[in-house]
Amino acid sequence: MHSVQRIIRQKRIDGIVIANIRNIRYLTGFRGSSGFVVVTKGKGLFFTDFRYKEQAQKEVDGWEIGIERGRRIEAIRSIIKKIGIKTLGFETSISYELYECLSTLPVKLMPQKGIIENLRKIKDKEEIFKIKKAVERAEKAFLKVKPRIRAGIKEKEIALRLEEEIKRQGCRHVPFDVIAASGKNSSMPHARPTEKKIEKGDFVIIDWGGEADGYYSDMTRTFLMNGSYVSDKIEIYKLVQKAQQKAIDAIGLRMKTQEIDSAARDVIKKAGYGDFFGHGTGHGIGLDVHEPPYVSWFKGERIREGMVFTVEPGIYIPDKGGVRIEDMALVKNRKAELLTSLSRELEII
Amino acid sequence: MHSVQRIIRQKRIDGIVIANIRNIRYLTGFRGSSGFVVVTKGKGLFFTDFRYKEQAQKEVDGWEIGIERGRRIEAIRSIIKKIGIKTLGFETSISYELYECLSTLPVKLMPQKGIIENLRKIKDKEEIFKIKKAVERAEKAFLKVKPRIRAGIKEKEIALRLEEEIKRQGCRHVPFDVIAASGKNSSMPHARPTEKKIEKGDFVIIDWGGEADGYYSDMTRTFLMNGSYVSDKIEIYKLVQKAQQKAIDAIGLRMKTQEIDSAARDVIKKAGYGDFFGHGTGHGIGLDVHEPPYVSWFKGERIREGMVFTVEPGIYIPDKGGVRIEDMALVKNRKAELLTSLSRELEII
Repeated sequence: MHSVQRIIRQKRIDGIVIANIRNIRYLTGFRGSSGFVVVTKGKGLFFTDFRYKEQAQKEVDGWEIGIERGRRIEAIRSIIKKIGIKTLGFETSISYELYECLSTLPVKLMPQKGIIENLRKIKDKEEIFKIKKAVERAEKAFLKVKPRIRAGIKEKEIALRLEEEIKRQGCRHVPFDVIAASGKNSSMPHARPTEKKIEKGDFVIIDWGGEADGYYSDMTRTFLMNGSYVSDKIEIYKLVQKAQQKAIDAIGLRMKTQEIDSAARDVIKKAGYGDFFGHGTGHGIGLDVHEPPYVSWFKGERIREGMVFTVEPGIYIPDKGGVRIEDMALVKNRKAELLTSLSRELEII
Repeated sequence: MHSVQRIIRQKRIDGIVIANIRNIRYLTGFRGSSGFVVVTKGKGLFFTDFRYKEQAQKEVDGWEIGIERGRRIEAIRSIIKKIGIKTLGFETSISYELYECLSTLPVKLMPQKGIIENLRKIKDKEEIFKIKKAVERAEKAFLKVKPRIRAGIKEKEIALRLEEEIKRQGCRHVPFDVIAASGKNSSMPHARPTEKKIEKGDFVIIDWGGEADGYYSDMTRTFLMNGSYVSDKIEIYKLVQKAQQKAIDAIGLRMKTQEIDSAARDVIKKAGYGDFFGHGTGHGIGLDVHEPPYVSWFKGERIREGMVFTVEPGIYIPDKGGVRIEDMALVKNRKAELLTSLSRELEII
């Protein structure tokens, strides 16, 4: 709350409306799915609806808790009146609808882009501890399921087992549907697991994550099933591996996100596969699986201590298959500390 | 696409931007998580990013498919120029951020509230088929897990088993984290499963759902564990049951959503428990677990044939426990057809 109050004082606004539920969790500790927050110079007000009344009383400490009944805007209107707010900031991620409602208030509105997201980019010790726990759970879950990855097994079976194991390791949520894609299917970066059986010579991409106290992890490994004509595929794997290493090294050079992206992308481009790497090199991760900073070819920003993001170049060749290697890096002591620990070497099964 | 084109002609706008991913799925069939749509009088344009290129080509039929590279607004700008759009509608559910971008375009912007959501309220045969399938899978999954509900079992174990079973029944997603709340925990309408063991005399609320081809189901059953001093609890259950039946009957009387809500609420209020039923009586369900129409005490609308919504009154008494009974109703032939089939009678275990 205090960091937000510092910011609104700097920006000379009397209060700010925060509606993004993850931002609310970040600030208040509230784990429910509905609520909003108003931070003023002297106060933090948290509102949720009846369903979460008891939960809020347990989870939200140091905030004034209110219960919404009916229209959210009326609750905001009465706060404004009571506290005497004249200039009101709002997160630009709110819906146009809520913005339209705010427009009816007798205040000057001041759009604020990414204030909380900016705070969230830099993880503190406690957050890093939770992220490491989320990685640990994901890796343990994976190692339990890994022996099942072999020719003849359905993609779906692997995904199902892995999701089950992720929960068994103590994660409250499976952060996203596990990807288990083999052969041709692996050429779709976001493929869904199908009834297809893994075949000899297939690439098998597994992309999964874990959770700990609201924080997420996200990683990908690609395996090659032994078979004939795999030498091309070995080359592709090694290329992705090299690209990933270049990006990781670039973190240590205090480069901008955009430059980290090109460190990986250039390797792939030079080898002639530039068209087959269409996504960004990475994304921040924390209370959201995908959050700033984005490590991509557009919009660069300087890497800072405490940032945590994925490094995940890939090459996807339609009808042939794809490779992605995804690890999580923490920027620490002017270097990348990999939070993920499973081997990144090619494993031919 | 044609229904949207009819609407934009009526509204005298040249095109509309649709960004809500479920609305996009509804219109185009696309199952990915990122994309946007522009519908003009003569055309339907669908955009997604590289990751979903292959998937879009498989899933999206009858739309012009484009791949976004970089900023979404530039893609929209070039469409506007190419097609000669002068008045552009947009869904009011878009973010303020996207709205700000749209404001830079050389067009007259026309906010459009809930156009697609309105279409989605009325389910066609194919959609009802999918919803019924989602119910069937959820119920089958539940019946497999039901024998485990007994004193001594942890809430978490039941939730975990049920989620596993939901996927085993063929659901791609578990639509929401299963609620399994017992004793005091059951007084929180959105409780998370804990390590608490079910005890004698507890109410046990199980709230879960299924999925079929993107459509969801959602239902709740409450059980009473045998024990001493349960007679009060039996009364509370019967009250909720009566309230639910009144609401279901009200559907047949072509009442407004608000009146359906009060049909249930009045029963609970008259018995003196009004303060312990703080949420709405129901919500529409389809491609989203919660979608219009909302059956609540504010904002009423007329019930129409083809609507599908939950009917789920509850009573939650802090420190004592709660009861919720939730079924799904389809408005058909001027009556409520219950899509859920598990018994609603009190079961004392």
